[in-house]
Amino acid sequence: MKALEEKILKEGKVLPGNVLKVGSFLNQQIDTAFSMEMGKEICRLFGDCGVTKILTVEASGIAFAFAAGAQLGVPVVFAKKHASANLSGETYAACVYSYTHQRNYEIVVSKEYIQADDRLLILDDFLANGNAINGMLEIAAQAGATVVGCGAAIEKGYQGGGDALRRRGYRVESLAIIDSMNESGIVFRKQ
Amino acid sequence: MKALEEKILKEGKVLPGNVLKVGSFLNQQIDTAFSMEMGKEICRLFGDCGVTKILTVEASGIAFAFAAGAQLGVPVVFAKKHASANLSGETYAACVYSYTHQRNYEIVVSKEYIQADDRLLILDDFLANGNAINGMLEIAAQAGATVVGCGAAIEKGYQGGGDALRRRGYRVESLAIIDSMNESGIVFRKQ
Repeated sequence: MKALEEKILKEGKVLPGNVLKVGSFLNQQIDTAFSMEMGKEICRLFGDCGVTKILTVEASGIAFAFAAGAQLGVPVVFAKKHASANLSGETYAACVYSYTHQRNYEIVVSKEYIQADDRLLILDDFLANGNAINGMLEIAAQAGATVVGCGAAIEKGYQGGGDALRRRGYRVESLAIIDSMNESGIVFRKQ
Repeated sequence: MKALEEKILKEGKVLPGNVLKVGSFLNQQIDTAFSMEMGKEICRLFGDCGVTKILTVEASGIAFAFAAGAQLGVPVVFAKKHASANLSGETYAACVYSYTHQRNYEIVVSKEYIQADDRLLILDDFLANGNAINGMLEIAAQAGATVVGCGAAIEKGYQGGGDALRRRGYRVESLAIIDSMNESGIVFRKQ
């Protein structure tokens, strides 16, 4: 998505430790109009796949997933990162290693919100090592639901998580794929 | 908002401990189309207030705030509940007591995303004791920004947080206000 690549070049900052900071529009401040455009692009890519539900993980995946869900006309379910008093009943759960926080955490979804006949689109704001998406795939498998594909706003191609999923046969669509980046520049993969 | 009251009556469940479970459409599974209708209602209420930005707190506030931001045509900033590797630079911070989790936590916003000339609308999915909104008001004050009002999808009127804010002079708009609830029924405040 050309407009996203341009926005990353204009507003993104590469910080030490291979962190791409896009908090001005994606994951702390959210550009709602631009997010709806990203949602439209997800709708263009997956609109004919019979998606019944989007699965994402709190917190920074929610806005992107919401925009896609609003455009596709389907609900969004978000996995929670810790048990909550509001999560009653039985749950699906998976363990995820966070590269950002360098620790494992559990993601949890109430069994009520994913059914075996669901056709899930799994979305997140970032796809790097693929750990969060792998956790969501595990939850989808526990529910017996069909996964029609995975998507991200920004994929860090050089971290390999997206390509590993593609090798396993999943359809993975990222609106921008960064093949390399450092403080002097960002190189996007041709799509 | 009549449609929200009806949805709460239809889909909500009152659990022991005064927990209203609305995970089917508001805070675990998100009904994107209905959220956009709630966003329209926020837009009707605050559309003439010159709002420049919506401030909310992760995670369950994000979808409601996003829908309102998309309808008002303004960005959303969400406060994070813990420090993150993605939060560089200086931050505004406030301490919030969580009734749900019975502990204090810190909410943090990067100083880049709130300016003194911002006119903030503070939104959350629930308004109960008002602790989260009070934390966001503190962050707004640290930034020197103007608060045009506060809003929630669902206010637990009997917990008093909304009325305390109104007594302090804030405009508080909640799309549904619950004056009492127990396992046999829910009573809404006339608005």
